[in-house]
Amino acid sequence: MSYRARFRCINPQCGATYPLNSLVYHCTRCGSLLEVEHDLNALARRGAAAWMKLFEDRYKSNEWPYGSGVWGKKEWILPEIALENIVSLYEGGTNLFWAERFGKVIGVENLWIKLCGNTHSGSFKDLGMTVLVSQVKQLIAEGAPIKAVACASTGDTSAALATYCAAAGIQSIVLLPRGKISLAQLVQPISNGALVLYLDTDFDGCMALVQEITKDETIYLANSMNSLRVEGQKTVGIEIVQQFDWEAPDVIIIPGGNLGNVSALGGGLEMMKNLGIIAKLPRIVVAQAERANPLYRAYLRNFESFEPIHAEKTLASAIQIGNPVSVEKAIRILKQFNGMVEQATEQELADAAALGDRTGMFNCPHTGVALAALIKLLKAGKIDKAERVVVISTAHGLKFIEMKVQYHQRKLGFPSRYANQPLELPARLDAIKEVLHQALEKNRQFHA
Amino acid sequence: MSYRARFRCINPQCGATYPLNSLVYHCTRCGSLLEVEHDLNALARRGAAAWMKLFEDRYKSNEWPYGSGVWGKKEWILPEIALENIVSLYEGGTNLFWAERFGKVIGVENLWIKLCGNTHSGSFKDLGMTVLVSQVKQLIAEGAPIKAVACASTGDTSAALATYCAAAGIQSIVLLPRGKISLAQLVQPISNGALVLYLDTDFDGCMALVQEITKDETIYLANSMNSLRVEGQKTVGIEIVQQFDWEAPDVIIIPGGNLGNVSALGGGLEMMKNLGIIAKLPRIVVAQAERANPLYRAYLRNFESFEPIHAEKTLASAIQIGNPVSVEKAIRILKQFNGMVEQATEQELADAAALGDRTGMFNCPHTGVALAALIKLLKAGKIDKAERVVVISTAHGLKFIEMKVQYHQRKLGFPSRYANQPLELPARLDAIKEVLHQALEKNRQFHA
Repeated sequence: MSYRARFRCINPQCGATYPLNSLVYHCTRCGSLLEVEHDLNALARRGAAAWMKLFEDRYKSNEWPYGSGVWGKKEWILPEIALENIVSLYEGGTNLFWAERFGKVIGVENLWIKLCGNTHSGSFKDLGMTVLVSQVKQLIAEGAPIKAVACASTGDTSAALATYCAAAGIQSIVLLPRGKISLAQLVQPISNGALVLYLDTDFDGCMALVQEITKDETIYLANSMNSLRVEGQKTVGIEIVQQFDWEAPDVIIIPGGNLGNVSALGGGLEMMKNLGIIAKLPRIVVAQAERANPLYRAYLRNFESFEPIHAEKTLASAIQIGNPVSVEKAIRILKQFNGMVEQATEQELADAAALGDRTGMFNCPHTGVALAALIKLLKAGKIDKAERVVVISTAHGLKFIEMKVQYHQRKLGFPSRYANQPLELPARLDAIKEVLHQALEKNRQFHA
Repeated sequence: MSYRARFRCINPQCGATYPLNSLVYHCTRCGSLLEVEHDLNALARRGAAAWMKLFEDRYKSNEWPYGSGVWGKKEWILPEIALENIVSLYEGGTNLFWAERFGKVIGVENLWIKLCGNTHSGSFKDLGMTVLVSQVKQLIAEGAPIKAVACASTGDTSAALATYCAAAGIQSIVLLPRGKISLAQLVQPISNGALVLYLDTDFDGCMALVQEITKDETIYLANSMNSLRVEGQKTVGIEIVQQFDWEAPDVIIIPGGNLGNVSALGGGLEMMKNLGIIAKLPRIVVAQAERANPLYRAYLRNFESFEPIHAEKTLASAIQIGNPVSVEKAIRILKQFNGMVEQATEQELADAAALGDRTGMFNCPHTGVALAALIKLLKAGKIDKAERVVVISTAHGLKFIEMKVQYHQRKLGFPSRYANQPLELPARLDAIKEVLHQALEKNRQFHA
């Protein structure tokens, strides 16, 4: 059976379509974003049970590339790509961690953390980047004159892009404002051989320039207006349902900045419902930092209007975005999924991340935002303690060591409620035993 | 069917045995290390095909805890533990990455990297720590008076211990020399709520004190003389064979310091051979840093004698060990597996790690030692380019950002052959295009 997909303009008044091998990032007719549209009628002919069986059989299997959580769902992602062009680093299949201890502390029993950061480049961006770089490899194989793939990004996107390009043998390019980003923050793209350009401008200037240079068809654009990445990222929702033996949870909480991940999450779940795999949709909750909360503000206005804001500096640096690229798609998804938006202050996100760490996680600050939102929604009665809740953890805490050190040194400018610091002692057995005796008594309550 | 395991003294002249719920770390009769001995006759009654089928069915499955790469092999690990005492973070099932591009550069086609660092705490230590902490939870459930688990470690061991203890709700304790270890190096145990004691002594002093305080049965010892951890770590070899559809590779290269991982690797493979799953054993190669190479020196003497040395400071900090705890077991394994030992200088390990990064990996320095050893053994004709080779990557590169930054800044005191640095440019399209044109021409050769 043959399955097909193409780009479609998200503007319903336009609806222009383009083949997936076109070098387009926006609709050339009306300028809107594009999304990948699948032939659902063809997919429906296979039947829900057969899809579930196929996905189960492939899950983490040795049959390359189907052991990848993304490519195990190839027909739903990029059905027409040739296997030899797939650039995969065994994405997905990450732990859906039962947060038993954290849940007890905050009063919810059925709480699960989807650890998307336990992966090759350390963030959920791998899920989307494998699709984008594979499609680029396919385009090159078909004769497109692409010599490199470029993005303007300080964080997980540039890391994932550089890693996948390095594995594929394709040059990656990263554009950044000079003097603002340290080499330590860039160590992944630098190590993975990216060509990093420090430019005499700000971040918006870099974004404008990357769109300029990728008008030339020899440089392909990897920023999040490229809708191929959404196709890979949508597997996160599908995989969560699969890990619950094909039952949808009640609530999924996801941190939101540029909001491409929200439409991806919703898109995957919607596809499962349309193809008869799940009967009901979970609620989707978007968690924002209070300092970068344009979607939260629009939510308070029942989404009657959306106003971009100037995002202030936040520890949750990857979601410090005032004018999200994918806001339209995200609002559509939230309306459809009976969604909510919650926000977290700097202290709330840092404390929630640290409390999670004490119970066995190792959170990035964005996961902290999502955990803090959960705590607030539970207190407000907007999430019931009997519900099955999933929090999407977007990156590995090892990417945020500096913030964690400052938290435990109480240097973040607000009280660190769960700070932990070493004790200094003489090297004598009696002194150690005395301290241990006291500390173990004190800790007993927390650990009980 | 019921399977059993117990501790046995590794000294063949002694051979004392102890039940697994004894609080012993050394043989109380002769002082030697212990190992876990399984009832192979009972295991053999099940048959090789049935074991393979069972392990396949459980691999990464949703049936807790069998989806873990360790607990999917529970009968071979800790057969008698109660499921409710297992503390698992979905260990194993990590990518066996086909290093196509790296292999092409160094001239070997069938090269695979087992990425054991793509995991919860970021290193292969998770494999062993899940077993140790689960056994502690079982001991507590059976009434043992254990209040905490302690180790003297600066690195991956303390990180893994603190994480698993945090998930289990058991207090962890880490003993360290004061003034030598920064909070950044300790951010994992600090975040995971460990009680960190900075003592007025050196590392050997901390090791002596941790053994003293764990003589008290309320504090359990987690350092590598505890042989429970080996049981979990031995799954790495089993999993590699499973990922090759139950075929052993020709060569497995592993970085070696304290050498517990070498006996673990060998132990798992040996068990597979004894139970009829593989017919031949792979060669095992231990890779050491030249600055901490006591096993390499003994290898040059055909293992006729072993002399501890004073290990010098090396970038491969986790294997900077001059007097390895598990040397006896490791030499026995190397003799049995037709083993080799190779060493790498600081420059060799750093360049090999960086070359690996350029081809899509993100290596820790210990993986760099193993990759450098491979390059040297290929050149010397001791590994054939037609052989199927696996390199065990022990930790995620995100744990070694400082070293990577220094490498690319050329600050390590030797030439950095694969250094990559940002280019500074004015924010003008023509200037960017000019630079891209030159750079893409220059890079073409490497990427071709």
